[in-house]
Amino acid sequence: MNTGSRRNFILQAAALTAAPLFTNMDPLFAQPAGKKIGFALCGLGSLSTNQIAPALLKSSNCRLAGIVTGTPAKAKQWQTKYDIPDRSVYSYDTMHRLADNPDIDVVYVVTPNSLHAEHTIKAAKAGKHVFCEKPMEISVERCQQMIDACKSAGKMLGIAYRCQFEPHHQECIRIARAREFGDLKLVEADFGFPIGDPKQWRLRRALAGGGALMDVGIYALQAARYITGEEPVLVSAFETRTDPVKFSEVDESITWQLKFPSGALANCSTSYNAAGLGRVRAHAQRGWFEISPAFNYDGIAARRSDGKSLTFPAVDMFAAEMDDFARCILESKPTRVPGEEGLRDLRIMTAIYESAKTGRAVKLS
Amino acid sequence: MNTGSRRNFILQAAALTAAPLFTNMDPLFAQPAGKKIGFALCGLGSLSTNQIAPALLKSSNCRLAGIVTGTPAKAKQWQTKYDIPDRSVYSYDTMHRLADNPDIDVVYVVTPNSLHAEHTIKAAKAGKHVFCEKPMEISVERCQQMIDACKSAGKMLGIAYRCQFEPHHQECIRIARAREFGDLKLVEADFGFPIGDPKQWRLRRALAGGGALMDVGIYALQAARYITGEEPVLVSAFETRTDPVKFSEVDESITWQLKFPSGALANCSTSYNAAGLGRVRAHAQRGWFEISPAFNYDGIAARRSDGKSLTFPAVDMFAAEMDDFARCILESKPTRVPGEEGLRDLRIMTAIYESAKTGRAVKLS
Repeated sequence: MNTGSRRNFILQAAALTAAPLFTNMDPLFAQPAGKKIGFALCGLGSLSTNQIAPALLKSSNCRLAGIVTGTPAKAKQWQTKYDIPDRSVYSYDTMHRLADNPDIDVVYVVTPNSLHAEHTIKAAKAGKHVFCEKPMEISVERCQQMIDACKSAGKMLGIAYRCQFEPHHQECIRIARAREFGDLKLVEADFGFPIGDPKQWRLRRALAGGGALMDVGIYALQAARYITGEEPVLVSAFETRTDPVKFSEVDESITWQLKFPSGALANCSTSYNAAGLGRVRAHAQRGWFEISPAFNYDGIAARRSDGKSLTFPAVDMFAAEMDDFARCILESKPTRVPGEEGLRDLRIMTAIYESAKTGRAVKLS
Repeated sequence: MNTGSRRNFILQAAALTAAPLFTNMDPLFAQPAGKKIGFALCGLGSLSTNQIAPALLKSSNCRLAGIVTGTPAKAKQWQTKYDIPDRSVYSYDTMHRLADNPDIDVVYVVTPNSLHAEHTIKAAKAGKHVFCEKPMEISVERCQQMIDACKSAGKMLGIAYRCQFEPHHQECIRIARAREFGDLKLVEADFGFPIGDPKQWRLRRALAGGGALMDVGIYALQAARYITGEEPVLVSAFETRTDPVKFSEVDESITWQLKFPSGALANCSTSYNAAGLGRVRAHAQRGWFEISPAFNYDGIAARRSDGKSLTFPAVDMFAAEMDDFARCILESKPTRVPGEEGLRDLRIMTAIYESAKTGRAVKLS
């Protein structure tokens, strides 16, 4: 299969599994051909600094057009570095003025998890499309509010599930859908890392909503869902905290199992206190395929049991996901990572926490 | 650490974790120095034919001294091939006559799972030590009967957990105990294969007691226990059958999670309908180590996150485990794989089946 037809397959598969078409589209938002979509980064932490802003420079369809930050000193640095005019610099309190800025099409929300709804809703109300970091928010209810706000505003909402734009992951999805090794029976997926600074916001429940599961386990959950191409119907989970001081507010390590309608199972793990996690391995009737490392920013590698190549050139996943979102805007197409996709993960993660607490498997509708 | 001290460490660790010393030892059973322990194979299926008998030829302390079979034609073939005298050939009905045969020290029970108790008890009553294939039996009660019978007879009982005698596994146990990468937080282990002939005894509940879990999942369970060096206190599991005809009597695919007293978790999987299973991966605070493939008869390979070598020459695990059992007999030492070890796995597997059925985590005492 050549690259062209493979790409077509992936696009078709994405279209088939995407959320319902975005129907309440702003009639004024059709863009002139060749225009680069202007992104404002909302939240200038390390992810924006080290990954997203550099990716915007590499992207084809996007440009860094503005910033939203609570730290004036940061604003100055960014303005100098990226040539951002004063009129495109906002604080969290002045985000409503985005409505007057035609240079900015998308607000990319990169603030701590529990602020995503507030910043998404502000951006939508200011008439901007929203791209939002994972996890989408810290509760199903807030995810729904974000979806509703963007729908009311006639704006697109996308969740930054970067691995869905990574070619090894895309090819594994294709292998699974094409049943190249027969029906999929088991997916194993894990992600985690030993977290450092005990004072960071990721360890504070009020800002993060949860720990390893919400931050990195979500990658394993995503992989289990997009590799099987199914939604789980049953989940059970265990949680342990071996360092109750550092992990006094959020989860340290969680294992969980998912049962899918086809009978496929997924076995997943995450930890903020263990090294070497970050793999997806899919076991089908007649063979297997795996991505390892699967979720790092670079160095993604994959292999399949028949020895055929499963190697692709490295891509900047942040550039890829933003370019895709920009294309969706320019071509009035739905994104493959809509708010509904983020909400689904929140619903499942909520069930994982519930099962870990009660010791009972939780049914998912 | 040189090989000598490493070996000492492993032996010490094994001694520390072994079952209580075998106290009711037959005073007559001390063997002359240099004597090879005579094994009778009970059950001449493919495992005996292709693995165990050839391993006896390679062993240092053992010899194939007799056979127990229900098939006279097989007896003739084996007698010719291995030069076994008529007086050392038994049927399942004449096993009591083993009592009169000084050439045979050990009966190695290789019959279908649900016959292990019957054949073990017959051998013990005939005054023979017993080495028994895994799973030990199909219920905790029968395992206890086997233990009791051997204890009453003053004979050793060992379970054929061959991987405990494999150097990559032994070294991983050492790495874990020495905390070379800090505390262990998560073990992932899986084993399985697409099973062939739908008419084989392994798919019949009456003979096998269970399916993938009892046959091969037990390797993953063992690994989770000997790598952590702990006994699980909580288990939850999912089971699915996607081929209800082939798997009308026994389990096809099972995932399960274990929680250990230290807070370590294990995430395990098994299947009779998926390819590529057979790994152990251990995640500690500062690094990881893994064995993959972990459970095959050969080709075992392992690696560790710091890149240091984790490679050993291949060993015949069947020869190694029988040689060790023979040494234990010759030196009046306890085996590291006593009946109590087999019973522990049966107890946990029973809990796994219960959890898969009820959807609730099961506490283990």
